[in-house]
Amino acid sequence: MSKPLNVGMIGYGFMGKAHSNAYATVNHFFDLQYRPVLKAICARSADKAKSFADNWGYESIETDWRKLLERKDIDLIDICTPNNTHAEIATAAAKAGKMILCEKPLAMTGPEGLQMVEAVEKAKVPNMVWYNYRRVPAVTLAKQLIDEGRLGRIFHYRAKFLQDWTINPELPQGGAALWRLDVAAAGSGVTGDLLAHCLDTALWLNGALDSVNAMTETFVKERKHNLTGKVEKVGIDDAAIFMGRFHNGSLASFESTRYARGHKALYTFEINGEHASIFWDLHDLHRLQYFDHRDQGIVRGWRSIHVSDGDHPYMGNWWVPGLQIGYEHSFVHQVADFLKGLETGKPAMPDFRDAYRTQLVLDAILQSAREQKWVTVARG
Amino acid sequence: MSKPLNVGMIGYGFMGKAHSNAYATVNHFFDLQYRPVLKAICARSADKAKSFADNWGYESIETDWRKLLERKDIDLIDICTPNNTHAEIATAAAKAGKMILCEKPLAMTGPEGLQMVEAVEKAKVPNMVWYNYRRVPAVTLAKQLIDEGRLGRIFHYRAKFLQDWTINPELPQGGAALWRLDVAAAGSGVTGDLLAHCLDTALWLNGALDSVNAMTETFVKERKHNLTGKVEKVGIDDAAIFMGRFHNGSLASFESTRYARGHKALYTFEINGEHASIFWDLHDLHRLQYFDHRDQGIVRGWRSIHVSDGDHPYMGNWWVPGLQIGYEHSFVHQVADFLKGLETGKPAMPDFRDAYRTQLVLDAILQSAREQKWVTVARG
Amino acid sequence: MSKPLNVGMIGYGFMGKAHSNAYATVNHFFDLQYRPVLKAICARSADKAKSFADNWGYESIETDWRKLLERKDIDLIDICTPNNTHAEIATAAAKAGKMILCEKPLAMTGPEGLQMVEAVEKAKVPNMVWYNYRRVPAVTLAKQLIDEGRLGRIFHYRAKFLQDWTINPELPQGGAALWRLDVAAAGSGVTGDLLAHCLDTALWLNGALDSVNAMTETFVKERKHNLTGKVEKVGIDDAAIFMGRFHNGSLASFESTRYARGHKALYTFEINGEHASIFWDLHDLHRLQYFDHRDQGIVRGWRSIHVSDGDHPYMGNWWVPGLQIGYEHSFVHQVADFLKGLETGKPAMPDFRDAYRTQLVLDAILQSAREQKWVTVARG
Amino acid sequence: MSKPLNVGMIGYGFMGKAHSNAYATVNHFFDLQYRPVLKAICARSADKAKSFADNWGYESIETDWRKLLERKDIDLIDICTPNNTHAEIATAAAKAGKMILCEKPLAMTGPEGLQMVEAVEKAKVPNMVWYNYRRVPAVTLAKQLIDEGRLGRIFHYRAKFLQDWTINPELPQGGAALWRLDVAAAGSGVTGDLLAHCLDTALWLNGALDSVNAMTETFVKERKHNLTGKVEKVGIDDAAIFMGRFHNGSLASFESTRYARGHKALYTFEINGEHASIFWDLHDLHRLQYFDHRDQGIVRGWRSIHVSDGDHPYMGNWWVPGLQIGYEHSFVHQVADFLKGLETGKPAMPDFRDAYRTQLVLDAILQSAREQKWVTVARG
Repeated sequence: MSKPLNVGMIGYGFMGKAHSNAYATVNHFFDLQYRPVLKAICARSADKAKSFADNWGYESIETDWRKLLERKDIDLIDICTPNNTHAEIATAAAKAGKMILCEKPLAMTGPEGLQMVEAVEKAKVPNMVWYNYRRVPAVTLAKQLIDEGRLGRIFHYRAKFLQDWTINPELPQGGAALWRLDVAAAGSGVTGDLLAHCLDTALWLNGALDSVNAMTETFVKERKHNLTGKVEKVGIDDAAIFMGRFHNGSLASFESTRYARGHKALYTFEINGEHASIFWDLHDLHRLQYFDHRDQGIVRGWRSIHVSDGDHPYMGNWWVPGLQIGYEHSFVHQVADFLKGLETGKPAMPDFRDAYRTQLVLDAILQSAREQKWVTVARG
Repeated sequence: MSKPLNVGMIGYGFMGKAHSNAYATVNHFFDLQYRPVLKAICARSADKAKSFADNWGYESIETDWRKLLERKDIDLIDICTPNNTHAEIATAAAKAGKMILCEKPLAMTGPEGLQMVEAVEKAKVPNMVWYNYRRVPAVTLAKQLIDEGRLGRIFHYRAKFLQDWTINPELPQGGAALWRLDVAAAGSGVTGDLLAHCLDTALWLNGALDSVNAMTETFVKERKHNLTGKVEKVGIDDAAIFMGRFHNGSLASFESTRYARGHKALYTFEINGEHASIFWDLHDLHRLQYFDHRDQGIVRGWRSIHVSDGDHPYMGNWWVPGLQIGYEHSFVHQVADFLKGLETGKPAMPDFRDAYRTQLVLDAILQSAREQKWVTVARG
Repeated sequence: MSKPLNVGMIGYGFMGKAHSNAYATVNHFFDLQYRPVLKAICARSADKAKSFADNWGYESIETDWRKLLERKDIDLIDICTPNNTHAEIATAAAKAGKMILCEKPLAMTGPEGLQMVEAVEKAKVPNMVWYNYRRVPAVTLAKQLIDEGRLGRIFHYRAKFLQDWTINPELPQGGAALWRLDVAAAGSGVTGDLLAHCLDTALWLNGALDSVNAMTETFVKERKHNLTGKVEKVGIDDAAIFMGRFHNGSLASFESTRYARGHKALYTFEINGEHASIFWDLHDLHRLQYFDHRDQGIVRGWRSIHVSDGDHPYMGNWWVPGLQIGYEHSFVHQVADFLKGLETGKPAMPDFRDAYRTQLVLDAILQSAREQKWVTVARG
Repeated sequence: MSKPLNVGMIGYGFMGKAHSNAYATVNHFFDLQYRPVLKAICARSADKAKSFADNWGYESIETDWRKLLERKDIDLIDICTPNNTHAEIATAAAKAGKMILCEKPLAMTGPEGLQMVEAVEKAKVPNMVWYNYRRVPAVTLAKQLIDEGRLGRIFHYRAKFLQDWTINPELPQGGAALWRLDVAAAGSGVTGDLLAHCLDTALWLNGALDSVNAMTETFVKERKHNLTGKVEKVGIDDAAIFMGRFHNGSLASFESTRYARGHKALYTFEINGEHASIFWDLHDLHRLQYFDHRDQGIVRGWRSIHVSDGDHPYMGNWWVPGLQIGYEHSFVHQVADFLKGLETGKPAMPDFRDAYRTQLVLDAILQSAREQKWVTVARG
């Protein structure tokens, strides 16, 4: 029989919903020793916490996260709050000896991230950051193909994360639903929100980035602020582009924006190697495009792989070939891997240190854009 | 608070898993008065029932479905067993006053289906058949566009369901995993398994079929039978093609096979109307292709609609625009609609009578193929 | 130096333009012993013939095709006139000892086609029918892959030719531009116009068809006739669907229509074999989709082959990899192959006899639709 | 009747073939007052000139381009030679009073380009540069949609030109076929060869670029040189990436490489405006992708426009809807527009000055990559 693992979640927004679904679902499809139990949900508003608890079956609520950390019946703290709260909560949770799953990006800055890394490493608590796209089966398959050496020497890595939801200048900033547009809560705009995802995948698939050269832009300079009711300067970046060099000698070409009309959440990456290339697209996340130059010439072409077979990563646990899975399954897989890591003693990645390395690239990008020059990425 | 609805499920295979997941998930995403409770799972093997119950949280097990029907604590019977058992169980369940959700196809034949219809109508019990593809959001959107009259007069309806998993002649027939290849258990091959799905959607979207002209083929004539251990004649159809006329004057062109190399579960349909056309493909189920001739000429083209916005059918209950959902969500939606139907008194479709009409088309197809002539479809 | 081959063309419409371009272009890209010379263009209207001659550089005009046949300086007669004139002209041209290139379909009926075959075989004149799609490089590549045995046993062949240009009921029938809608000039509607193309390719790629079962439909029953000025019954088929059996045991599923909104000239075919499958689409004619089940499982997928490399059929004669060619190149290739056939003594196909076999299938389709029953295809 | 325009072409390589085909074809499809006459082909090798003349019907040959310029019977000089010869030939041709069509890029550097501009402007001779992709109908359609104001404020312009033909380190540099890999002949690598195309389109569609920040890379550092027979340092850039700002405030993101496995000639661009977005891809050049946010929400999606209708740019001159044209037609259109410009007195673009502006961006890119900093683009 499976062992219960008591979860205390802080935050009840979009990510609270995605994580709760993952905890509720994981044991139905994965054979694991541990079983998450939805023990407590914490939110400043008791009403909202209560309503969320009712919907998802949390056994209790808290309105003060410090109280939650004091509870003996909580094994794991899941941090789903805005970026500017991660460090304080995570550091305290580590001191309280809790396992920690933290939403991405890890922190507001590299130094803040380092504090968090030191806290969990000192406390020796299992920790992980919710860079969920690694666990989309097609992305995991890409990793597998790269690790098998199929691509050969890598020449290019390009990634984009394009959205179009903030083009309307009447959209306000700040507050519960729109904290991502408020620099005080988010730290940055698309850099921390979208490029962070691209970078987590890139460092995982292609290794460290040595140097970057970036530009950012804020297209809409002022927006009404929901917390003050006044029109205020927009402090976040609406768009960010950078080029760079990976440690393996390949060139980086990255872009993210919330002003690309026609793209809802178009995260794509492409890797060009000496022998083979790979392309992936979040809008059709169950497919991987693969080109292998070693195929016979007359029948060489990009292969559209429908990643839904039993021998594809994670897919043996779901349906049958041809039946695709959706966005939320990446979170289910991440919980499954985290729990498996507890069983085996081989922690699932990315842990805080791994996510800290991504944070250092984000810092370098923002510095480069500010100073308009090449910046060497610090090593974490 | 939601009212419990006690579910007793018979069968624990692929569909048992899909339905259990739907019951476990539906209330997390849909606001409903009723809440399914996984009360009992029934299977001939107590071990298998036990194991399934453990995994999904069923409170009890049964090894005799008649016992299950006798239990007062069961409100709803879910029939996930092979086709040749549907009629007997459903008829008995209706007599026992249970709500019934039955896997598709409804029955082995039209007359058998009619018995089932009469049983549930006499007993006045809520009933539904698991033709789940109606509830893929893109398919529901297609229905909405048609109901709004956007297509105008319909000229063509074509559908295909292509698979490739039985090409290997060494694959045996019969038994738990392969009952679909055994005519005694399945009644027919791709006709009842795959064309049935195409027809349910077609009758829903395009109205009744008046007449059909069909051919079937069994490419591999003999296979080892798992129940007897002997090589036996294959009684099912490996492929079926038919043409026909819908009552609205449009032409039908349908095909299904398990011998189309490269297609895992490629269910597609296309509808061509005077003003607009629609195309859908199960392999990318979150997209709908739409062409509207009333668009200005120079920018006219097929639109690839990523059906993931809040105003798309069902999608306001899930994630955010751009994030796709998967196969199993169609079952979640079907349970949601069934429960909503109990609330509102407007039953969700397809009920047994609706599915019986599909059965009559299946009968006409098989008769036409046997007799090599046009057959008029009986009205149900 | 190349030897001149004097061409006399009859007709100056769309096909006259396509053929003239092929004659004018072929020697620039293909190294051939023969060189077509545009000697004479024949049309009933001297003005139109003159204007066409000026544009394309024809050296002379004729207004009576019989005069053209009498000219000693003409080696080859190219018949680009409506279907109901092919037999008379071709038979006379054969008697006059001319080489003949005839537009498709060969004839109005099988028996008429047989007369034409007998005429050219008796006269021993080189002859060919303009079924140009065989010479699209991607289609020729498909033939090559099939001939290499890559597909294994064939299970399915399906083809469609969908257009949408006659949906408007105000469109008249008959006369110069719209003779294809006039049964007296065209013989049939989509069957002879569109299915004929699908069948030529199918018989070439997959061998003979043994039997067919068809239906046709005329959606718009009456149209104004351009020649009489009156509203008259429409005699052609607007849509045709048939199923059938190939001699190799595979199943045929064919459809063509001019009422499929959103499709301008969507000719597609797909062949499913035991080991591999092939798909092609005229709207992106420079690509071939290929699926090979012998690829390793985890990287198996449909390959999108951009047929533009030097080792692809015909492509070494054009540009460089990645640069696509267009529709008219299929005619250039057909002329190139015809001229090469004169050089080598191995005639390019399809000749009249080959096209006659396609005609016999067309006859069987129309008979089957009329009589509503399976029809055995006669052998030619 | 059309007036002859006597063409003298210098160079007989890939571009010589493409241009010759354009001259030979243009009057068949476009109604123009002028008619190019293939008067003379010039090449250092008399044999090669003779052979090319025979194939294309040039009336005479020259082996010294200065002799060609002296001929009175030549109206127009077409320069198809390597980049390092453009300036000298064009300047002399302008002095000789000839019209000039010059292959791209205009020059080796901006200052060299300026000399050429001054020469043609002083001589008042018609002049044009072969940036052919403007005349792909889908690209011209993009221009039309932008000029109509459909996109609104522009936020992003991104372009890529990816190839994979130089990955093999055994490929030599220099000489007739491989002068593009020899910095002495080409001036730069992908910057002048591929980015130049992207920039010509971008400046045309989106206006001037104010500043750029670039990086370049040479992956294979040494290659055998065909002219010396020795292994020599590679002086060209194998890959180039740059970001920048357009004068209209939109962000630029560009990349080109010859090391992107799987892409033969993948030139793509995408423009994101406030209301609408556009995407184009050379590998399927007859399609334009268009997204219009003003479409009704539930049926909003990228439209795949098959640019083959009579009301699409240039397409009324070719075949019928659904029938695509190929790469070489862009050259035919460019000649047609040039000749029309002679008729109307409104010169076809890009002329030398226009192409000089592109040259200034190329200079800025190379300087930025060298100096690793932002560079302001000079205005031409």
